[in-house]
Amino acid sequence: MTAYGDSVSGNCYKVQLVLHMLNIENQWQEMSIANGDTQAAVYLAKNPTGKIPLIEFDDGRVLTESNAIMGYLAASSMLIPTDEFCKAKMYQWLFFEQYSHEPYIAVARYIQLYLGLPDDRLAEYHSLHAKGYKALSVMEATLSQQPFLCGEQFSLADIALYAYTHVAHQGGFDLVEYPHIRGWLTRIAQIPGFVAMQA
Amino acid sequence: MTAYGDSVSGNCYKVQLVLHMLNIENQWQEMSIANGDTQAAVYLAKNPTGKIPLIEFDDGRVLTESNAIMGYLAASSMLIPTDEFCKAKMYQWLFFEQYSHEPYIAVARYIQLYLGLPDDRLAEYHSLHAKGYKALSVMEATLSQQPFLCGEQFSLADIALYAYTHVAHQGGFDLVEYPHIRGWLTRIAQIPGFVAMQA
Ligand SMILES: N[C@@H](CCC(=O)N[C@@H](CS)C(=O)NCC(=O)O)C(=O)O
Ligand SMILES: N[C@@H](CCC(=O)N[C@@H](CS)C(=O)NCC(=O)O)C(=O)O
Repeated sequence: MTAYGDSVSGNCYKVQLVLHMLNIENQWQEMSIANGDTQAAVYLAKNPTGKIPLIEFDDGRVLTESNAIMGYLAASSMLIPTDEFCKAKMYQWLFFEQYSHEPYIAVARYIQLYLGLPDDRLAEYHSLHAKGYKALSVMEATLSQQPFLCGEQFSLADIALYAYTHVAHQGGFDLVEYPHIRGWLTRIAQIPGFVAMQA
Repeated sequence: MTAYGDSVSGNCYKVQLVLHMLNIENQWQEMSIANGDTQAAVYLAKNPTGKIPLIEFDDGRVLTESNAIMGYLAASSMLIPTDEFCKAKMYQWLFFEQYSHEPYIAVARYIQLYLGLPDDRLAEYHSLHAKGYKALSVMEATLSQQPFLCGEQFSLADIALYAYTHVAHQGGFDLVEYPHIRGWLTRIAQIPGFVAMQA
């Protein structure tokens, strides 16, 4: 199995974390978005959306979408609750991440870290902050009552939301008023198999 | 079980379709976004994101995110492939829908149908079209090779993407160059248990 990803991308880092935590053998194919690797014809043939991460099997089958890849790699592992309702709650967080968290926090990080906060994107940057903080507040409320997003058990929900939350400061977010999120970030970094993002 | 939703919202319509197709007993609680029902304190206590749909069980447990709700309601039904890789592909489409389809097609529809295309959102409306058509092209390429998004089997992937694709014209999208999508829309309307959106 080959995993295609850019090590500084949070969506790709999710896949890296699952591969490490479950000790899954793989070949990591480092891709540079900046160099246009995701828009090359050979890659677009694998994924017409032109996005990473992607995993490819020896028989040519491919899977995209970071959260779907995690779900496949972690099937029948401790990273997915067995109870049907808990599993649904895990997916609730995965969809929340893609819809209400990543589009604000990851994009603010992109504008600040990669583009260097250009004037013509300052208004957008500030509007992303309002929505990103709203997502953080929802997480904080949950984490004030339980150690992980799905309760007592560490799961893919935590990995998905860790990916961009732990680098939210690179997008100008301040976690000082989110003590339970900070405690949760610390707990995750202690999970066996954890690896830091290579940013 | 009570399902909270607004009948003209595609995300809520997904839940309605699954409830009908699987003939699941429920109480439908109609919510009006326009009247502020989703921002009322009693609703925010159930879902701090202030969004619908949501399902609530008699013991008080709640589940949000349309695609997670579908996954829970349809567990062990014909709407979810049993093969692990096919199931992962289904989730790939569900995340694609939330990340690369709904934010463009549903929002263009909102600007046109609900707001009446105000001048100050015209530039945004046109940029949504470019991205929405890109999502439609990815679907068209797949549907030119197979009857449903996951292959031969109708699944939650089709329901999720049907929700806003079948009303894409209300957001100014023209499907004339997407014949395979049009054929797929027709096939879905013939699935047993199908109900039209009450828009
Ligand atoms: N919903 C996708 C999003 C993936 C995504 O946006 N990837 C970015 C990097 S974080 C990308 O490949 N961008 C390259 C491009 O758009 O050309 C997922 O979760 O995998
Ligand atoms: N990711 C969510 C999105 C839900 C969503 O955006 N719902 C809209 C209606 S389609 C809503 O409740 N808007 C009310 C509001 O924002 O006040 C899902 O799939 O359920």
